[in-house]
Amino acid sequence: MVATPTASTSSASQLETLCINSIRFLAVDAINKSNSGHPGLPMGCAPMAFALWDKTLKHNPKNPKWFNRDRFVLSAGHGCMLLYALLHLTGYDSVTLEDLKQFRQWGSKTPGHPETFETAGVEVTTGPLGQGIANAVGLAMAEAHLAAKFNRPDCTVVDHHTYVIMGDGCHQEGISGEAASLAGHLGLGKLIALYDDNHITIDGNTEVSFTEDVLKRYEAYGWHTIHVPDGNTDVAAIARAIEAAKAVTDRPSMIKVTTTIGYGSPNKANTAGVHGAALGADEAELTRKNLAWSYGPFEVPQESYDHWRQALSRGAAAEAAWNNTLADYRAKYPAEAAQFERQLRGELPQGWDANLPSYTPEDKGLATRQHSYNCLNAIGPNLPELIGGSADLTHSNLTDIKGEKGFQKGAEANRYLHFGVREHAMAAILNGLAYHASGLIPYGGTFAVFAGYALGAIRLSALSEIGVIYVLTHDSIGLGEDGPTHQPIETLASLRALPNLLVIRPGDGNETSGAYQVAITNRTRPTALILSRQAMANQANSTAAAVARGGYILEDSNGSPDLILIGTGTELDLCVKAAAQLRAEGKNVRVVSMPCVELFEEQDAAYRESVLPSTVRKRLVVEASSSFGWHKYTGFEGDSVSIDRFGASAPGPVCMEQFGFTVDNVVAKAKALG
Amino acid sequence: MVATPTASTSSASQLETLCINSIRFLAVDAINKSNSGHPGLPMGCAPMAFALWDKTLKHNPKNPKWFNRDRFVLSAGHGCMLLYALLHLTGYDSVTLEDLKQFRQWGSKTPGHPETFETAGVEVTTGPLGQGIANAVGLAMAEAHLAAKFNRPDCTVVDHHTYVIMGDGCHQEGISGEAASLAGHLGLGKLIALYDDNHITIDGNTEVSFTEDVLKRYEAYGWHTIHVPDGNTDVAAIARAIEAAKAVTDRPSMIKVTTTIGYGSPNKANTAGVHGAALGADEAELTRKNLAWSYGPFEVPQESYDHWRQALSRGAAAEAAWNNTLADYRAKYPAEAAQFERQLRGELPQGWDANLPSYTPEDKGLATRQHSYNCLNAIGPNLPELIGGSADLTHSNLTDIKGEKGFQKGAEANRYLHFGVREHAMAAILNGLAYHASGLIPYGGTFAVFAGYALGAIRLSALSEIGVIYVLTHDSIGLGEDGPTHQPIETLASLRALPNLLVIRPGDGNETSGAYQVAITNRTRPTALILSRQAMANQANSTAAAVARGGYILEDSNGSPDLILIGTGTELDLCVKAAAQLRAEGKNVRVVSMPCVELFEEQDAAYRESVLPSTVRKRLVVEASSSFGWHKYTGFEGDSVSIDRFGASAPGPVCMEQFGFTVDNVVAKAKALG
Repeated sequence: MVATPTASTSSASQLETLCINSIRFLAVDAINKSNSGHPGLPMGCAPMAFALWDKTLKHNPKNPKWFNRDRFVLSAGHGCMLLYALLHLTGYDSVTLEDLKQFRQWGSKTPGHPETFETAGVEVTTGPLGQGIANAVGLAMAEAHLAAKFNRPDCTVVDHHTYVIMGDGCHQEGISGEAASLAGHLGLGKLIALYDDNHITIDGNTEVSFTEDVLKRYEAYGWHTIHVPDGNTDVAAIARAIEAAKAVTDRPSMIKVTTTIGYGSPNKANTAGVHGAALGADEAELTRKNLAWSYGPFEVPQESYDHWRQALSRGAAAEAAWNNTLADYRAKYPAEAAQFERQLRGELPQGWDANLPSYTPEDKGLATRQHSYNCLNAIGPNLPELIGGSADLTHSNLTDIKGEKGFQKGAEANRYLHFGVREHAMAAILNGLAYHASGLIPYGGTFAVFAGYALGAIRLSALSEIGVIYVLTHDSIGLGEDGPTHQPIETLASLRALPNLLVIRPGDGNETSGAYQVAITNRTRPTALILSRQAMANQANSTAAAVARGGYILEDSNGSPDLILIGTGTELDLCVKAAAQLRAEGKNVRVVSMPCVELFEEQDAAYRESVLPSTVRKRLVVEASSSFGWHKYTGFEGDSVSIDRFGASAPGPVCMEQFGFTVDNVVAKAKALG
Repeated sequence: MVATPTASTSSASQLETLCINSIRFLAVDAINKSNSGHPGLPMGCAPMAFALWDKTLKHNPKNPKWFNRDRFVLSAGHGCMLLYALLHLTGYDSVTLEDLKQFRQWGSKTPGHPETFETAGVEVTTGPLGQGIANAVGLAMAEAHLAAKFNRPDCTVVDHHTYVIMGDGCHQEGISGEAASLAGHLGLGKLIALYDDNHITIDGNTEVSFTEDVLKRYEAYGWHTIHVPDGNTDVAAIARAIEAAKAVTDRPSMIKVTTTIGYGSPNKANTAGVHGAALGADEAELTRKNLAWSYGPFEVPQESYDHWRQALSRGAAAEAAWNNTLADYRAKYPAEAAQFERQLRGELPQGWDANLPSYTPEDKGLATRQHSYNCLNAIGPNLPELIGGSADLTHSNLTDIKGEKGFQKGAEANRYLHFGVREHAMAAILNGLAYHASGLIPYGGTFAVFAGYALGAIRLSALSEIGVIYVLTHDSIGLGEDGPTHQPIETLASLRALPNLLVIRPGDGNETSGAYQVAITNRTRPTALILSRQAMANQANSTAAAVARGGYILEDSNGSPDLILIGTGTELDLCVKAAAQLRAEGKNVRVVSMPCVELFEEQDAAYRESVLPSTVRKRLVVEASSSFGWHKYTGFEGDSVSIDRFGASAPGPVCMEQFGFTVDNVVAKAKALG
């Protein structure tokens, strides 16, 4: 599949230039038409994109989901017109000329940054800088893992590269450093990044803030590095660099390609002015003259199409060859093939959740992080696609699965991931594992408060509709001595405010099992499991199944309730105990467990009314977290036992008592409702 | 002030060992008593801490706030017993032996991680890894800035170093890389970090996830690097390294000090087991034997105290010498001294806000980011302590002040900060500038959605009670074409849920002026200014002064209101226009502007009732953001025009219309209230 770079001839070079300029002018024209966008990158990166997409990239435009394709990530997502032009030129049905004319318009397939859920052929959603390269580390890990697991000496069914184009901005973001350090450690030889070294960011020349030696830094991470000094015209050198990178199989490669941003624009090239604004009609015309481009807006010469669309036959042949390999694999290794193909179809194995534990009040109360551990260990053996780990808090998050060893260089079939103290990269790498779309179910743990380090990537899990599972332990002031820097207050509200994220705070063992059922089966939205450090009782009436409804009546008095206590997590048992005391005083009290507000809100109105009758306005929410957001359920007449200040360093039970998370205070607040 | 390391003699070495072991056993004993904490770092880092604090650090324990002290940052904040032991041993009143016995207990001065607001002598709040080294970059920038600005050839009134102890975890966090890259770029020669290279993190040996060449990476950033191979016993080598680092004045220095975590513990040293758990009584006893420590728990030999507390006389002499320098400066440079001392007192200059603009409806409607620019330029010339910039979005955030040049190596007196694309480090550096406590008022801009990249540090601004100003522009789907990756939905809720953060979303020019008055005068809590990309009208009845009350009646019908429209930011004018239409239909409509919910909630009940009478339940909130949190004001009977899904890429006005931010929809929703 991989063409070696041909020796430059004059005619090849003219054709190459035509193909490269086709990218440039599609970008210029689309951005001019929308009068919004970033022409600088597509104009500067067109040669490296040509070298990669025309000479190396293994993909089948007619089947963007073909499993064994190379993955391409435009980490510098603002340059999306580069990607849309490539998809169009190589023959993807998802991006027609008409789509390019609708760049950045309502409902178009060509939004302002690449969105994987909008446009077939876009592997990952990028734009927030640094995410793409970290996603790419996850993509490359997925490939390495599946290759190590499924390939056999006589049958290579998993074999593809992950390519990235990234800019100065991506390099400045800390998340890229975190991910690159891990990629170097893991020796991800099939990860190849092209660094668009154009010396321009929005504030002007990188001289104002970014003068480090980037390649030396990557060498320190353990990467192989190459520099192509002329990325504007020397396509052969770029192609050679890519081949050299592919030849180095024990380390990822960083190819620095020095370019001119906005190449070809006589007045705007090499300025910040071409980074994020349309060239305008006049400058576009001057650029046409300068690059001898005699074609009109959105006009692609047939010769260019003819060359670019050789990708179609190459792609079809590549996929056909792989289909033969797969058939061979199926014949030789039927069991492995069955698992492999099941995963690719995204089907869960029969009985994956058969061993999820259930509990009665007689069972010892445990922390939900411990229940989570038991769940992971109950499903792990039946769910080989489950892969994950922790950001260096394995024995606090309890994210390990017995007997599973660490994914390491030379041991990529292992599925426990040691992310190091790198929460943001962890989340983005989990996204990458999910974006790989090979059935892997990625999970990762850290302390709940450090979701604040990773929110940029968690947001993208939600936006991109991928079922990453976040295991967030130490979920309240109840964690105790580590103090306010480690005690979440606002974290639950931050996560609940995010669209398309399930936030589940289970209240005992059964609800934790239910939380895993929800998390594992939701493959198009991420889940944040909010888990305690400290133990709590198992409830008599909790069930795993109830979690899927988000909220439910845990226990009730006879007759219609005078008041409703709504509890989550470690505070559920407080509600039960307070209810008992209130009932002893003659009140009809309902206890509602609300492990997942989002799922509750998806239930039909009748169900919601049955749980929280609109006539019962005396409602008390009990949750050791900010009250922010709970007034939706308590209204003007209800109240909450919550914490709207930072916590304190003291033993957990002392914190809970000092901040009012006691049966007496819940009873008192409930009575105060009248 | 700076002692050069003395040649090792047998007795000196014994005394040094006694002093070093005093740290170790105070840590062991306090952590054993609380049965919670991290003994590994204090035991391993005691020698480097001794070398730094006994031989180099310029500080006056009797005046922890002395301006010209060296700043010490324990970036690896979990090792806080190291810092508490040092404060105690050198004679700070804030940490007595009794305080050490109260380690991690309710109300103590020795919480589980160092908190600057709890303990005099703790310069910054640490614990969340990577923050401290980034704060230190801010501290060193503050020193460099003030030195360049105030020092004169014959009078050096600003002259101190910033020292850091950091571990593997800090190096793994991306924020440290962002900050270090900028520190290298700026050539912060008085920033010296000691890297506790102990090869152990919580998940075990760093071999599982962290095998990069750290010093090579720092060289790539432009740092000077040194390695001390024996950090366990070779105090003289550490001291020499610190002196060598001080001698390199054009670059920051990273000193890698190879140590053994939990040094001295026969069974737990060099294991993850000593990182975050008490040694226990038995192992403490074995450690005493191993290190020949014949003293009981919390017993410090008098010889050790005698030596350590030489810090008192050294500190007093240093401060006295500086006071003489200051007197000299006052005499020679009275104007400069007046400004310098005013800043140190934290007093704002008379008339600092005299030029803040005010507007009438006849004035052209502008985006609030443009109003913000006008405010910065109105106050900037009168407020020399205002210092800030942008994370590479200067011309989008409009954070520049005319005529102010960039803070660069060799031009540190300039006050415009080019942070590069490094939002998280920016926030932590702003924290560092504020922690310096020299009157600097730091601000920094990025797109509002990227607050999600910086939340870890924004949280610490709030927790640490420091008045950092965040300038967050492009605050809604109204930003348009950049699409959902750039359009905040949950951001306002995330920020509002954070305790002690003022979130201000002004609705026109007057309110933006008011927002700056609040932000500048609030020096013990941070402010997030939420500003639009797009223009809006100036209101007839808005005032700057009203912003300080958080919410106020912008306009009203005669008679008691039938319904109340509550608006913020760009949606305020929608409320005004909808109200006019509703009034034309005979309704009594009040429009409440609510630029800052937090300030409104601080008003007395009578004021709040006067604005939002509890009898008026028909309330409609209009804000182009998540509805999450607004039910506190709308209850069960109100509603909101908001957006609880991700946005879309299209021109801003199209997005606003498609998502229902139109007069017609506001009117319809208002009428639907009944």
